Amino acid sequence: MKKLFFCSILALFTSQTQAQTKSVPVYLDESKPIEVRINDALSKMTLEEKIAMIHAQSKFSTPGCPRLGIPEIWMSDGPHGVRMEIDWDTWGHAGWTNDSCTAFPALTCLAATFDPELSLEYGNALGEEARFRKKDIILGPGVNIYRTPMNGRNFEYLGEDPYLASKMVVPFIKGVQQNGVAACMKHFALNNQELWRGHIDVEVSDRALYEIYLPAFKAGVEEGNVWAVMGSYNKFRGQYCSHHEILVNKILKGEWGFDGILVTDWGSAHDTKEAALNGLDIEMGSWTNGLTWGESFAYDNYFMAQPYLDMIKRGEVSESTLDDKVKRVLRLNFRTNMNRNRPYGSFATPEHADVARRVAEQGIVLMKNEKNFFPIAKDKYKKIIIIGENATRSLTVGGGSSELKVKQEISPLEGLKAKYGENNVSYTMGYGSGPTVYDSFVPSPYNADSLKKEALALAKDADVVLFFGGLNKNFQQDCEGADRITYDLPFGQNELIDDLLKVNKNLGVILVSGNAVSMPWLDKIPALMQSWYLGSEAGSATANVIAGDINPSGKLPYSVPRKLEDNGAISFGTISYPGDSIKQIYKEDILVGYRWHDTKKIPALFPFGYGLSYTTFEYGKANTDKKEYGKDETIKVSITVTNKGKIDGAESVQVYASQSKPSLERPEKELKAFKKVFLKAGETKTVDLIVPVKDLAFFDDKAHNWTVESDQFTLHCAASSADVKSSVAVKIK
Amino acid sequence: MKKLFFCSILALFTSQTQAQTKSVPVYLDESKPIEVRINDALSKMTLEEKIAMIHAQSKFSTPGCPRLGIPEIWMSDGPHGVRMEIDWDTWGHAGWTNDSCTAFPALTCLAATFDPELSLEYGNALGEEARFRKKDIILGPGVNIYRTPMNGRNFEYLGEDPYLASKMVVPFIKGVQQNGVAACMKHFALNNQELWRGHIDVEVSDRALYEIYLPAFKAGVEEGNVWAVMGSYNKFRGQYCSHHEILVNKILKGEWGFDGILVTDWGSAHDTKEAALNGLDIEMGSWTNGLTWGESFAYDNYFMAQPYLDMIKRGEVSESTLDDKVKRVLRLNFRTNMNRNRPYGSFATPEHADVARRVAEQGIVLMKNEKNFFPIAKDKYKKIIIIGENATRSLTVGGGSSELKVKQEISPLEGLKAKYGENNVSYTMGYGSGPTVYDSFVPSPYNADSLKKEALALAKDADVVLFFGGLNKNFQQDCEGADRITYDLPFGQNELIDDLLKVNKNLGVILVSGNAVSMPWLDKIPALMQSWYLGSEAGSATANVIAGDINPSGKLPYSVPRKLEDNGAISFGTISYPGDSIKQIYKEDILVGYRWHDTKKIPALFPFGYGLSYTTFEYGKANTDKKEYGKDETIKVSITVTNKGKIDGAESVQVYASQSKPSLERPEKELKAFKKVFLKAGETKTVDLIVPVKDLAFFDDKAHNWTVESDQFTLHCAASSADVKSSVAVKIK
Repeated sequence: MKKLFFCSILALFTSQTQAQTKSVPVYLDESKPIEVRINDALSKMTLEEKIAMIHAQSKFSTPGCPRLGIPEIWMSDGPHGVRMEIDWDTWGHAGWTNDSCTAFPALTCLAATFDPELSLEYGNALGEEARFRKKDIILGPGVNIYRTPMNGRNFEYLGEDPYLASKMVVPFIKGVQQNGVAACMKHFALNNQELWRGHIDVEVSDRALYEIYLPAFKAGVEEGNVWAVMGSYNKFRGQYCSHHEILVNKILKGEWGFDGILVTDWGSAHDTKEAALNGLDIEMGSWTNGLTWGESFAYDNYFMAQPYLDMIKRGEVSESTLDDKVKRVLRLNFRTNMNRNRPYGSFATPEHADVARRVAEQGIVLMKNEKNFFPIAKDKYKKIIIIGENATRSLTVGGGSSELKVKQEISPLEGLKAKYGENNVSYTMGYGSGPTVYDSFVPSPYNADSLKKEALALAKDADVVLFFGGLNKNFQQDCEGADRITYDLPFGQNELIDDLLKVNKNLGVILVSGNAVSMPWLDKIPALMQSWYLGSEAGSATANVIAGDINPSGKLPYSVPRKLEDNGAISFGTISYPGDSIKQIYKEDILVGYRWHDTKKIPALFPFGYGLSYTTFEYGKANTDKKEYGKDETIKVSITVTNKGKIDGAESVQVYASQSKPSLERPEKELKAFKKVFLKAGETKTVDLIVPVKDLAFFDDKAHNWTVESDQFTLHCAASSADVKSSVAVKIK
Repeated sequence: MKKLFFCSILALFTSQTQAQTKSVPVYLDESKPIEVRINDALSKMTLEEKIAMIHAQSKFSTPGCPRLGIPEIWMSDGPHGVRMEIDWDTWGHAGWTNDSCTAFPALTCLAATFDPELSLEYGNALGEEARFRKKDIILGPGVNIYRTPMNGRNFEYLGEDPYLASKMVVPFIKGVQQNGVAACMKHFALNNQELWRGHIDVEVSDRALYEIYLPAFKAGVEEGNVWAVMGSYNKFRGQYCSHHEILVNKILKGEWGFDGILVTDWGSAHDTKEAALNGLDIEMGSWTNGLTWGESFAYDNYFMAQPYLDMIKRGEVSESTLDDKVKRVLRLNFRTNMNRNRPYGSFATPEHADVARRVAEQGIVLMKNEKNFFPIAKDKYKKIIIIGENATRSLTVGGGSSELKVKQEISPLEGLKAKYGENNVSYTMGYGSGPTVYDSFVPSPYNADSLKKEALALAKDADVVLFFGGLNKNFQQDCEGADRITYDLPFGQNELIDDLLKVNKNLGVILVSGNAVSMPWLDKIPALMQSWYLGSEAGSATANVIAGDINPSGKLPYSVPRKLEDNGAISFGTISYPGDSIKQIYKEDILVGYRWHDTKKIPALFPFGYGLSYTTFEYGKANTDKKEYGKDETIKVSITVTNKGKIDGAESVQVYASQSKPSLERPEKELKAFKKVFLKAGETKTVDLIVPVKDLAFFDDKAHNWTVESDQFTLHCAASSADVKSSVAVKIK
């Protein structure tokens, strides 16, 4: 007789209760507040168990407390997708086949969307993938400020402006964490270059620290409620950042009240006592025992392992320093793998591919577009020639810890062939970079002359040439562990573009990168798009934008200087960037990015916030809801925007603020609000942007507080940092 | 300002609901019945996604449905502890360091405890370890009947009696599953030898099948509500058991109404159409593509992968066959990794070690004890000599899939040294077996003569000699994949014992094994203990019993024949055991174990249910609550038991039933009840044992049903199958 199937979770655990005679301990009693449960678990742990919880047991995990049933904590890189499984103790790929993920666009692209709602979707999709892959912490997002175009890791960050980065990172964190997976905001702090990142000692004013380098972290903590932060490799004022008295104790855990865990970058701990006293909570990837990078397995000798235990036993530091760390780890457990209500996640889904594609489509920036070069209608050309390695190269591999193994990666060439038809699209490489390796001295396997010869032959007879160049994820390009060695495009691309233009002037350039590059050929080409590392849907998004199925709306999240020396940090010479290998001084201070270009009247080649559309937008006159505001009030800035063209499109309206007579020098203007609005052809909308008066403050480093002075401020409604459409003055009482 | 920490799970997921505009699909709606959710998930899956869910993606996992967020299913060997992590695609150890588990005693030991409550504790502890290690299915318990002492895998099973195995397996399953981890009862069915297990075709009567080989499986399904069953490698009546029309369709899923999953043993699937039609639900470890055992990675070519998909597309089997399998897998998900209420488990805890120790202590069987050889009081001897490899050898490694990596394994020598003091205990190996390898032809690395010489020299002057011998986990001993090649002790142990007795007669033997062995020296030794593969606490348990801190109470779960030919199966020659490599016939039919010895009047050397104590028990006169019973009634048998000795102890009182004039031949008697009672010295207790009248049935294979005949039955209260203390007759109307 077939039994009826009754499955009642309640019945199941009623029977359990009957079977287990012992009562539920407080730390497992879900009717108790979490802080009570944390304290109860802590009280049951031995000193050795506490120590075990705060350092690695493998490359990416900590052991939890197996005796008490506190689960292990598993982490994974990184910001753009869930990294493939690696071996227990080495960086070798473990050879699993269930870890081919969705690659989302690099965070520069996300920043370029100027769309916080899309950031929430990105974070949520990433969180879902991490959750399905049983990760408790995903090691992202990265929010270090784009200080120079040379930083090898800028592609992982959210651009040069602290306000933009703050507004984009908060929903990202919420999106990840609503899956019961911790986001891990990194790298805290002042890790603005990869060169000598392991030891460079950064000197920067309090004012630049608070106004430029910390706001995104602060927003992530205070508004995003991020559960984990990663310490950086570098030093600040002589002390390593991962156990830093000012950065961690005073600011992160003090001023901001961060209650999550501070985890090292892999190998960024350097001292047991500082780690104990200065707020480091979890130590990963150390190369104690004379090991070097990649050999981080002597776990018992980690700074926060046996040496910390010994130090406590000798009475040199108190056990309470350890207890605070363990409580934070337990709090993370309760937020992630001991949260019964977290969703189950999902992995490499069509929905996630859709998020990846939309972020990519919204982030591509149309930089130049003479004579409507773009969009290229489907039946316009019979012979479309694609040239350039980045039309076919996988850009989800390489780059360092953000490397991904993807379920699918549609290349631009594949996307364009699907869009225009196999027969209408031909491809040749044009240039070649060679393998993705941690060594820029590995010679390219390609013969540059013959590649160029073939490209010129093809381009000559083309109806149109699309050049896909830029940087890639090789060492010393857009890659962790080193900075770029030149502002110019590598692999002879500048010469190649010049030569191509000689045989065919109908040439559009699509640059794929996470950094600005010099563009000596800019005046000679009719059209330019700035694209990014777009992930799984790179080709479909690119083709959609090129063909006009998507009207581009991305805005540059960084300035593109005409020449490298026009960058503020670099203008001060090596003491400012990259330092002397021991130390560097951020001489440009608060004048980072457009703040430098604006204030010093050094126009960028392309300014921050810049981006064209296939349509045109007309701005009306800016208004505010009042003329005068108190310091606790909120300013509403309103402006009409009209789509004057014949196709629908989106515009990111930006509001910059200038103070008339500040007591300290302030930048010419600073971004204080933005809103992306979608306008049908011919449509007009009134855009309301909110600027809390407190956001008009500067950081007074003498008084160590944020100050809004009673003064006149001008609010500029603008299409970019260099394209103010209408300004309105207000008085702050 | 320090922020207050408020973490409300509710608040967290309220914000999630706000963020996610789409509504929760039915399969994730916890207010809906699980069967409704299963159907909803199924309805959302593509044919390819369904196929993916029913076969391996790696050595020990299936992929779930990543798109829908149905989690992967992770399995682990095995019955005695959670196996170490292995590589994705090979049997190589993955080198993790978080997987050193608690080793629990082998199931023969658990059976010997005759204690279902301890079985619940065992199952629960194992389930907790599996849960902590993120396993969704633990591949145990094994309940194949001990048919001959030659089966290499008997040590993993619960002995020769179907009633004992049934009563012990049900709480085991409940214990595991109350942790939200599926038990997987194995190997279904008739896998009663390892020799030729991959293809041997078993012929057995329906009667023996139902009365002897299936009851434990049936109890596991009907009473234990087991969620998973593993199909065996062998054939039955010409068809492979893992996709068997009678065993799976008719009995398991038909008669018993099993609603869980039937999973292959690793590589036990052989045919797509049979798998599709005959109830196989998950296929693991196949060596399709001409691979051999250990090379099971061509997952797409598994019988239930592409070939099944093709067969459905060609219309040769219906998609509904697949749907039934997928629904069962989904049901498993909802019972395990999609059960929000499951506990978090714990790993290698002192509590688990305690369970392991108590099972070991309760399972050790005192077989002979002249002149109170045991217990050995702590101050009795100054010079205790321990001889024999099993006093020090790790017996948690080897044996096949039940191999374990343990956090701790206390050897008998370590236990005895701790008990009697380092200075009073000396050890020499005596004999040596060599490495644990899948090849019995690897020569021993030891020189037998010099080992013996050293042992004799030490024994000569000893106050007492304790010989720790028996079998071990080497190939062709107690090990998966082959049967034993001799009933005798290996490695010259018999000769060694004889020679030791010549120099010292005060010699006790402790046999460690999972099988009976010949004992030519039995009359010459004063004392014998049957010990088992005891796991992590082997040494402490052994020492506690030897020293008398624990009074032994284990009872043999199998008969020990005087000579191998006294075993029923073996008495019929090779056609019965081991077969001719193609086929075998279970000629002894229902007369397995003591049923054979009793009925055929061939006394065992040690009978089933046998075991001494350091005290003596006196049985009173058996009574029943009535003299006559209807067929739906329940018989209560009562008997007083008195502890006549000076120390406390436990006795497992057994009730066997005999039918006076059955219409079919029945065994002389059959176990129908048992109860383990603890009695203080001098204490008397009345023991009540319940025998439902329906349990007096035999299986009428012509009528294909269980029949209780109206007849007189005798209920024997006994201390073993050969030691009836008092009998009482009842009439069944």
